[in-house]
Amino acid sequence: MARIPDDYLDLLERPLIGHLATVSPAGRPQANPMWFLWDGTHLRFTHTNTRRKFEQLKTNPNVAMSVVDPDSGYRYLEVRGRVVAVEDDPSGAFYATLSARYGRGGDPPPDAPTRVVLVVEPTHTTQRG
Amino acid sequence: MARIPDDYLDLLERPLIGHLATVSPAGRPQANPMWFLWDGTHLRFTHTNTRRKFEQLKTNPNVAMSVVDPDSGYRYLEVRGRVVAVEDDPSGAFYATLSARYGRGGDPPPDAPTRVVLVVEPTHTTQRG
Repeated sequence: MARIPDDYLDLLERPLIGHLATVSPAGRPQANPMWFLWDGTHLRFTHTNTRRKFEQLKTNPNVAMSVVDPDSGYRYLEVRGRVVAVEDDPSGAFYATLSARYGRGGDPPPDAPTRVVLVVEPTHTTQRG
Repeated sequence: MARIPDDYLDLLERPLIGHLATVSPAGRPQANPMWFLWDGTHLRFTHTNTRRKFEQLKTNPNVAMSVVDPDSGYRYLEVRGRVVAVEDDPSGAFYATLSARYGRGGDPPPDAPTRVVLVVEPTHTTQRG
């Protein structure tokens, strides 16, 4: 468990887009923008259990998230970690929480029955600026 | 060689921050914000040849870059590819080109002698929005 440096916590607390890197079974990286929530201990992402990336994370649970300060593009935080739990979210409640956090209305998604929460434990951080 | 979809080319042509994902020798992802230049065929990044990530890219040249439209955070492009060349940049000229592109003055860096250009060939794209 890595501690997030206090002076970079705002980058996790503000509704900024995180760029989540994962690794395919062939060892190649993938990167996608993602909503996230920092609960003080873990990063939490909404996902569906039907997408290939979800299967890949069972094989290689390591992830890294990069987030920049839009008010100062040279200030950034990288959180490396691993998926330590996957929680069912069949009502889409967690998706709705994220949707509200990011100013998108807070409604549950049409694919709620397939929704899960990826729970990521930070293991290392890098930062600058 | 993957073609970049025409209606997402602007995300490579505008001076946006890319989030570059790489894979460590242990198979864990890393993600960092990066300046980049799209030359019409390759993505080009400035790097130093002294940093560990540079060594890692020799072992695993696969990368992925995620970039979002700051005017519409749900519009994004992911470019997956691999480092196909590393060009010396001992005067820091390419660094200076990027610095000017990103509105940071266009001066060469103090560590110019160690600067290299990572040349990435796109192999796959994903996009949304």
